[in-house]
Amino acid sequence: MRAVTLLSGGLDSTTLAYYLREEGYDLTCLSFDYGQRHKKELEAAHQIAKFLGAEHHTVRIEVEEVVREEGKILAVASAPLGAILGPSVLVDATQAVPDGHYADENMKQTVVPNRNAIMISIAYAVALAQKAYMVAFAAHSGDHRIYPDCRPEFVKALSDTLQLGARWDPTDVVPYVMGPFLNYDKTWIALEASKLGVPIEKTWSCYKGGDIHCGTCGTCYERREAFFLAQVEDPTEYLDSSTVYAAPEGVF
Amino acid sequence: MRAVTLLSGGLDSTTLAYYLREEGYDLTCLSFDYGQRHKKELEAAHQIAKFLGAEHHTVRIEVEEVVREEGKILAVASAPLGAILGPSVLVDATQAVPDGHYADENMKQTVVPNRNAIMISIAYAVALAQKAYMVAFAAHSGDHRIYPDCRPEFVKALSDTLQLGARWDPTDVVPYVMGPFLNYDKTWIALEASKLGVPIEKTWSCYKGGDIHCGTCGTCYERREAFFLAQVEDPTEYLDSSTVYAAPEGVF
Repeated sequence: MRAVTLLSGGLDSTTLAYYLREEGYDLTCLSFDYGQRHKKELEAAHQIAKFLGAEHHTVRIEVEEVVREEGKILAVASAPLGAILGPSVLVDATQAVPDGHYADENMKQTVVPNRNAIMISIAYAVALAQKAYMVAFAAHSGDHRIYPDCRPEFVKALSDTLQLGARWDPTDVVPYVMGPFLNYDKTWIALEASKLGVPIEKTWSCYKGGDIHCGTCGTCYERREAFFLAQVEDPTEYLDSSTVYAAPEGVF
Repeated sequence: MRAVTLLSGGLDSTTLAYYLREEGYDLTCLSFDYGQRHKKELEAAHQIAKFLGAEHHTVRIEVEEVVREEGKILAVASAPLGAILGPSVLVDATQAVPDGHYADENMKQTVVPNRNAIMISIAYAVALAQKAYMVAFAAHSGDHRIYPDCRPEFVKALSDTLQLGARWDPTDVVPYVMGPFLNYDKTWIALEASKLGVPIEKTWSCYKGGDIHCGTCGTCYERREAFFLAQVEDPTEYLDSSTVYAAPEGVF
């Protein structure tokens, strides 16, 4: 059986790909280029798919800008989809990525609106074409609080909806959408990564897109915290790992 | 209030854009380039948006093909999304577009899998960014029988799902997904187009993508039939309009 799995190149989606392979699935990994500033994750995704020996595609979503004069097309340029979706700091290079814990209010601005529905809908088309059993993505319990499109009720609703839209006949067997890590937290994922032999040092999490992980943006913070709490050695090189990663009150 | 509306450049979506403008909405029109062979519709969409004075974007969904040697990137090419979604004849230039009535069994192969969920999810992101009231698309009652993702129950489920994924807080006001023509047929749309002064001759329906409408493919057939039944003059030039467009048994 085949699973189409979203692979950003980060720790969560990489661990999910290894987890699904361990479960016996043939994998089609999909990465997305929507103009995010942390393009290093796309290169990480490619390497990880290669390690896994899995089929891998990078889907790019662009907006065409056509320059016309008197009805004639002079030039066709393109901008990433993010250009018309502002103001997420993930796609706008003029804004600074906020530091601090993921659960903070300022993390809302790191969200590309409706990102999961877009990526999963495209993955679902691939799953239909490949007669796959499921589309999987690596949302985990720590995401729920901040991202409404990472919550179990959303994933269930999206699965039901896409199945409804894909069935020519009520008896047709069509793919599910699943979030196998929905009920686990990132600490569990760090532990699982270690157990499954995930090449942790090849994964990329940082939103800032520098040469090495910054260590202070929300996703670096969360990554460091997960390895610390899981008591798993973190091979990642951080620019700044001096800040304390104790969780803010109310998160646990 | 703003509506983000899918505009393929065909008769249905063009009439919907005029209909929404008549209802008082500010419009953002979105067209999609997924590798369809009938690219003329994209140019038609541009012209129609210009007539309407509406904001218009063409979103292109591509698959990146990266050529590497010893870890170095030698070249980045791209193929339309359709390239990994076969075997729809709409995106595969090696296959012939079938002739005949839309309701025929052979029309199933003209479908790009999950197309509406993909386009609507992207439009929904734009609607969120623009604080629009709705995402609208022009599915009509004649589509239901053939396309499961044009049925009212799918549209309602998708609207509920995307709203669920977009609400940070249960009281947040977020866009709807609507199919204003879901309960009308194409004959009604042809009549409405005439009433609203839609520039019918500028719309493009044909799946074959020739210089003028072929007149015999499923969508040309359906277009001719609609104008005939609505008793509205059809200004479209067809390569072949000799075939009879009486509906097959059971359609009405």
